[in-house]
Amino acid sequence: MRGRAATRFAGEDEVMAERIYRDPVHNIISLDEADPDDRVLIRLIDTPEFQRLRRIKQLGLALFTYQGAEHSRFSHSLGVMHLMRRVLAHLGRRYPIARETRLAATCAALLHDIGHGPFSHVVEAVLGYRHEEWGARIILDEATTVHRILVERDRDLPTRVVAVLQHTYRPRFISQLISSQMDVDRFDYLLRDSLMTGAKYGFYDLEWILHTLEIAPDEECLYVAAKGLYAVEEYLQARYYMFRQVYFHRNLRTAEVMLRSIFRRAIDLMASGQLSLIVPDSVMVKVLRREPLSTEEYLALDDHDVMFHIKWWTKAPDPILRDLASGFLHRRLFKAVDLQVNAERRRQLIERARRIVEAAGFDPRYYLIEDRASDIPYLGPYSPETSGPESRIYVEVDGGSRTLREITEVSPAIRRLRRFHIDRLCFPEAVNDAIRAVVAEREEGG
Amino acid sequence: MRGRAATRFAGEDEVMAERIYRDPVHNIISLDEADPDDRVLIRLIDTPEFQRLRRIKQLGLALFTYQGAEHSRFSHSLGVMHLMRRVLAHLGRRYPIARETRLAATCAALLHDIGHGPFSHVVEAVLGYRHEEWGARIILDEATTVHRILVERDRDLPTRVVAVLQHTYRPRFISQLISSQMDVDRFDYLLRDSLMTGAKYGFYDLEWILHTLEIAPDEECLYVAAKGLYAVEEYLQARYYMFRQVYFHRNLRTAEVMLRSIFRRAIDLMASGQLSLIVPDSVMVKVLRREPLSTEEYLALDDHDVMFHIKWWTKAPDPILRDLASGFLHRRLFKAVDLQVNAERRRQLIERARRIVEAAGFDPRYYLIEDRASDIPYLGPYSPETSGPESRIYVEVDGGSRTLREITEVSPAIRRLRRFHIDRLCFPEAVNDAIRAVVAEREEGG
Amino acid sequence: MRGRAATRFAGEDEVMAERIYRDPVHNIISLDEADPDDRVLIRLIDTPEFQRLRRIKQLGLALFTYQGAEHSRFSHSLGVMHLMRRVLAHLGRRYPIARETRLAATCAALLHDIGHGPFSHVVEAVLGYRHEEWGARIILDEATTVHRILVERDRDLPTRVVAVLQHTYRPRFISQLISSQMDVDRFDYLLRDSLMTGAKYGFYDLEWILHTLEIAPDEECLYVAAKGLYAVEEYLQARYYMFRQVYFHRNLRTAEVMLRSIFRRAIDLMASGQLSLIVPDSVMVKVLRREPLSTEEYLALDDHDVMFHIKWWTKAPDPILRDLASGFLHRRLFKAVDLQVNAERRRQLIERARRIVEAAGFDPRYYLIEDRASDIPYLGPYSPETSGPESRIYVEVDGGSRTLREITEVSPAIRRLRRFHIDRLCFPEAVNDAIRAVVAEREEGG
Amino acid sequence: MRGRAATRFAGEDEVMAERIYRDPVHNIISLDEADPDDRVLIRLIDTPEFQRLRRIKQLGLALFTYQGAEHSRFSHSLGVMHLMRRVLAHLGRRYPIARETRLAATCAALLHDIGHGPFSHVVEAVLGYRHEEWGARIILDEATTVHRILVERDRDLPTRVVAVLQHTYRPRFISQLISSQMDVDRFDYLLRDSLMTGAKYGFYDLEWILHTLEIAPDEECLYVAAKGLYAVEEYLQARYYMFRQVYFHRNLRTAEVMLRSIFRRAIDLMASGQLSLIVPDSVMVKVLRREPLSTEEYLALDDHDVMFHIKWWTKAPDPILRDLASGFLHRRLFKAVDLQVNAERRRQLIERARRIVEAAGFDPRYYLIEDRASDIPYLGPYSPETSGPESRIYVEVDGGSRTLREITEVSPAIRRLRRFHIDRLCFPEAVNDAIRAVVAEREEGG
Repeated sequence: MRGRAATRFAGEDEVMAERIYRDPVHNIISLDEADPDDRVLIRLIDTPEFQRLRRIKQLGLALFTYQGAEHSRFSHSLGVMHLMRRVLAHLGRRYPIARETRLAATCAALLHDIGHGPFSHVVEAVLGYRHEEWGARIILDEATTVHRILVERDRDLPTRVVAVLQHTYRPRFISQLISSQMDVDRFDYLLRDSLMTGAKYGFYDLEWILHTLEIAPDEECLYVAAKGLYAVEEYLQARYYMFRQVYFHRNLRTAEVMLRSIFRRAIDLMASGQLSLIVPDSVMVKVLRREPLSTEEYLALDDHDVMFHIKWWTKAPDPILRDLASGFLHRRLFKAVDLQVNAERRRQLIERARRIVEAAGFDPRYYLIEDRASDIPYLGPYSPETSGPESRIYVEVDGGSRTLREITEVSPAIRRLRRFHIDRLCFPEAVNDAIRAVVAEREEGG
Repeated sequence: MRGRAATRFAGEDEVMAERIYRDPVHNIISLDEADPDDRVLIRLIDTPEFQRLRRIKQLGLALFTYQGAEHSRFSHSLGVMHLMRRVLAHLGRRYPIARETRLAATCAALLHDIGHGPFSHVVEAVLGYRHEEWGARIILDEATTVHRILVERDRDLPTRVVAVLQHTYRPRFISQLISSQMDVDRFDYLLRDSLMTGAKYGFYDLEWILHTLEIAPDEECLYVAAKGLYAVEEYLQARYYMFRQVYFHRNLRTAEVMLRSIFRRAIDLMASGQLSLIVPDSVMVKVLRREPLSTEEYLALDDHDVMFHIKWWTKAPDPILRDLASGFLHRRLFKAVDLQVNAERRRQLIERARRIVEAAGFDPRYYLIEDRASDIPYLGPYSPETSGPESRIYVEVDGGSRTLREITEVSPAIRRLRRFHIDRLCFPEAVNDAIRAVVAEREEGG
Repeated sequence: MRGRAATRFAGEDEVMAERIYRDPVHNIISLDEADPDDRVLIRLIDTPEFQRLRRIKQLGLALFTYQGAEHSRFSHSLGVMHLMRRVLAHLGRRYPIARETRLAATCAALLHDIGHGPFSHVVEAVLGYRHEEWGARIILDEATTVHRILVERDRDLPTRVVAVLQHTYRPRFISQLISSQMDVDRFDYLLRDSLMTGAKYGFYDLEWILHTLEIAPDEECLYVAAKGLYAVEEYLQARYYMFRQVYFHRNLRTAEVMLRSIFRRAIDLMASGQLSLIVPDSVMVKVLRREPLSTEEYLALDDHDVMFHIKWWTKAPDPILRDLASGFLHRRLFKAVDLQVNAERRRQLIERARRIVEAAGFDPRYYLIEDRASDIPYLGPYSPETSGPESRIYVEVDGGSRTLREITEVSPAIRRLRRFHIDRLCFPEAVNDAIRAVVAEREEGG
Repeated sequence: MRGRAATRFAGEDEVMAERIYRDPVHNIISLDEADPDDRVLIRLIDTPEFQRLRRIKQLGLALFTYQGAEHSRFSHSLGVMHLMRRVLAHLGRRYPIARETRLAATCAALLHDIGHGPFSHVVEAVLGYRHEEWGARIILDEATTVHRILVERDRDLPTRVVAVLQHTYRPRFISQLISSQMDVDRFDYLLRDSLMTGAKYGFYDLEWILHTLEIAPDEECLYVAAKGLYAVEEYLQARYYMFRQVYFHRNLRTAEVMLRSIFRRAIDLMASGQLSLIVPDSVMVKVLRREPLSTEEYLALDDHDVMFHIKWWTKAPDPILRDLASGFLHRRLFKAVDLQVNAERRRQLIERARRIVEAAGFDPRYYLIEDRASDIPYLGPYSPETSGPESRIYVEVDGGSRTLREITEVSPAIRRLRRFHIDRLCFPEAVNDAIRAVVAEREEGG
């Protein structure tokens, strides 16, 4: 719920107001309009840039697999801000945290996804965008309302917020809170995505973890007190299952592969002047021409632009674009087969699949797509090797011992949650049997 | 989750498959691909017509008030089908229900919202559509996939499904189950909307109500056994609070009023040939020209069409359309004031407000809008007067007594949940103080 | 969970410890061993007097109806203390509350049930005890550990805690928080009893109510801000249903009636020197002799004493005591019939029932018991008439208006939650048909 | 809730009744009084033998650590019966299960804990009882009401129920359902204990597991379909954490150690004729004399007998019994230190601790107790080595593959949930520092 709720207070004459959001995960998220720092947050939420996040789905195409996954980055971002406030309140009781640090941290939490565009995983891959860069640009660009509001509070606030997001802020635990292997971003999305998908694998004991977070005085880094070990194990397992069951779900990824093919085809048609169905003067023209976008133009994009064009392209003269768009829209997705073989065999298999695809009348550039998880190194279950030292999770060895260890050193169960690799080939259902036969034949032959 | 999960069975050779959906409200929704009736449901879900419901939000503009209200009619429709199956399984244990009746009832549950368009409350009001009529048309039109699948199972099935939805089916409790004051549609949406909005007012003891549903033998009508009285009271209270706090929320309704103004302005501009920003050859052209749509054209519409155009209209040459669209998009909503006065005073007040609006440079046709709840008679809290006899809720007086009473006769608490009337005036924030002063002045004078 | 969890803090050398309880209702209840006031609470919890509450069931005999109702007054009292701390933290942000007031309020919350004995409703009725008096006595008696711990912190603390419990403390909202129509005692027990019984009728939006509590400056009384009205309505309805479905449940009350008969018979046998099975030198001897108990003796009593003797009495030589005890133990409860007639008819009916009971060979003193709800005036659903001005619930009329109204003035739904009266006759199953026939006959005749 | 709720049915004249229990874990547990098999269950629940389970806590002394752990074996047993019914309904849809098998399985589920006595873990260890044997005896003994009710339904039913409990029943999956590494007993207690303790570690996706249970046709053994793998992993992890955090919690085990010392001291005093405070003619006399009990005598025992005597012994003339009893009652528990050293060092350490304990004036027979987890081999986290083939968990390798594997072969995460060993020394707090110093010294020296 969003609304101004006036409340009066003992001994005061003025009416003090509150901004309240009801949230399916956190229940009540409340901001105090009388507090200057809270007012910055309220004003940031009301900017067109932040309101735009209402029109960008948090999980992109996951709703093709889990129909409930319809929540937006707007809801998630409010939740992340709320958790940051709770963590700071908890830590602040024992550790001095400057007011300006609190404000920078909370703004960073609220704005951490401000640079996301529609269906980011796909669009970023195709167009070479990075949402982190766009995020910094939006915060620093003097033309945005977000920037103006931050600067009005404190001229250094935009830089500070970006520093928090880019891990250059000190004390360093502030950046860890918003972006590390155990941060408020993940805390929120695991619970929210679990609830919304109905998949249930992402629940863990948030309250206990928040209760056991501590700061190591010398290095200013975050750690978990000994009594929190089991809760962190549970959190990492929850995350592991969410990756296997939701974020890396086969159908989600074939949908993403299809969307990638649609974009590539549209770009190719645009390049050759053949893309007839495109809303003139819309930002999509520039996007498909791969022209650089201004901040304003980038901010004009959301899920509706992509979906409107895809719907329109189901009537495109180009048969490839038309076919891909209508398969995507009506959820007739590609099929996928796991490869997981050595490089030589891989090449052979793909070559044979290519011939099958071509023989069936499909253009392999758009209809035979490799899907490898190594494309997205920043995701995946926790492992100390792939996490920079800033990101690792430290746990106290014994209650009150002051001795910290990286969590996989003390938790054999977590050591076993190994990184999994995705190596799949995606193609239309029409060639499914033929390609599966080829892959199976190889296996038996091997 | 949606996926084929193969399972094998003792003593059988063939692999039997299941279609499973994970749901935030009902957890597991499962259909058996080996069962011919379930297969009809599976195939219906896979039609473009039903997949379209993924792109239509259940609560329309409620997300402006409750940001979590982002769920689609697709999720809700699956839930309604699931509840219908549960109720029929429960009743079927004691009351013979023919297989063909079960199938018609379950298809009707799944398809009860198939005629909904984007932002129905607004669009229906502006364009004179009725989603119930479109629903029947989609089911009966031989050109739709939905129709084809129903007919393939049984040539009378489309007619039967429509009969269930239109209360002409016998036994009559089947229609009551999908559309009455206590039906599986409401059972699902109260829980789902409560969860998603975070408003929490719509929870009630669903399991107990399902457990206490009975059928009166002579009239074939649905009733609740005596032991279910409190649960029904709680359900009606939950519904009452959801209306007050969510469905009739001031901000939701001012957002709807604004959307109505946008549509009206676009229609007016179209009529005078001045609407420049409109995607040519799109169905929106016909919509705004108020031309009749074919079923296929109607089915092409979803939230993306509306939102894409509104976004585009934020750059329209026409200042009124531009201003309304950008206010709507960035959530700078109209303000509203309650009138609730007699007819004469009402007319005076509106006249004075009109002058204020005009003096401030706004066109009152689009900027001064009356919002009356009597516009939506099919909604609102339960009362026996406004419900046809088919829709009323009957409760058994004493355990095993066979004597049924309409619920407000036995429950004083429910009698008090009176119908509330909305009588508001909506206008831009710029004239808020002036108009409020006028309304307040009258009150003091009175 | 109870345990010392050591945590270290930045820049400090000493290890600070925490006392943590995991709770099914409130999740984490945490006390800081380094805080002198929290340490008082920890030490109070560890007293034999408070540990005794582990051996006294919160809902007495309700488990005969709701088998899950097995929780103790210990768990409930921790929950009440926790809620008091949360409310004080919330109010304290806007209203100055002295530290000594906070401590008195929190100790009062923790100790509000310290005077409860086993199966209080029954035992108090039979023996004329009042747990409130015993509570004050335990807190003020210099011989108890509770008293000693309070005095060690502040010599006036025992008196202050009793003042809070007895509504003589100022500011007056402190007493209202622990004992009024909307207090932390009820906040906890509705949620806890709902969860444990599985009855589900007692859930309401606690977080929102806590969020909307305010203090009226002039009278120092508690009220609910306008935005909290619906949540308070829901709370009162939850409470109403819990009374109807749990606290006044027919089986619970017939079990209580039976326990009362057991006690009366044992007392009568004791008076005539015929009670052979009684553990010598135990406090039960004095109880059944109706001799006054010392504080120490009273504190020795718990559910085990009562249950052990009842079990033993299933072998008593006296046939009445034996029969009642074994009926009670094996859950062969009395039956009950509603009277609800005028005084004259009531007398006639009871007289006829008495003759039936006697004719069947039962002694009516123990086998024909009137059960009237007017025996327990301090319970029941909310009504302003039966609540002193200190106890009533006040709600702000409009947001920020400062105008308060008693809730039934503004909420028609709540006005309708009328007090219900219990007027039943309880007797053995063997005479059930005969007595029911008499009551029914009258009804038809009337 | 327990109550008869009359319901009438279409086309029938008689009133059919239902027995309903509301449950905090499973919500509604319902039995049909018109069904002859359900009626057996209803009558079994009403026996004195089963009602006795209301007076035996499910988790014994766990409430000293988690105060909410106050639920009885009665509630748990109802839950296990309910889950058995659900599993059989699920499996029965695809696999023919004879009605007599269903009845035997459901009775076995209901009665699986019927042989439990008060604080079984301790009492069984001290007295050499085995609750499984007592359970079989109660079911087979012609003098019990349980036996009589079973025989009245079918003369072979008692033998069949015992066969199910003792793994001699065929088809074998029936026994696996009630007693294996993944059975309805564990399914219920993990969820129930998690909820009641508030520890939250035992939640897992029950619905999904139930949904994926299958039967292998040739061996008639239970397995989990491939799609259920993650849910089983989660279940085993939940179980692992519940063991670490609840069932093997240090405080719970020191409380058990203390109770063991109390029993041993009472037995020793009884043997030497020195136990003065004992209720004459009570079964406790025979228990402490270690005389064999009749079924009737055994069934007379419950938590109240143990607790009543312990309370009484706080005034015993014997100082050891008095001290132990009052320490136990007021929760002044023993302390414990982990040993986990080789056998030789272990012996040395214990010898030194013994001298410390003696020097402090404590009798080491009662005040220095070794606590080793190997004492309870039937508990602990899952491992294939310690589970007989009947008990192991089998999972299908790929969807529809028919190939089964023991779960640790396919799940590295589960392989890592290793059995943990408890090797602790327990003693009074007064010698805590001295003994800890000795243990620490050794470690540094080592």
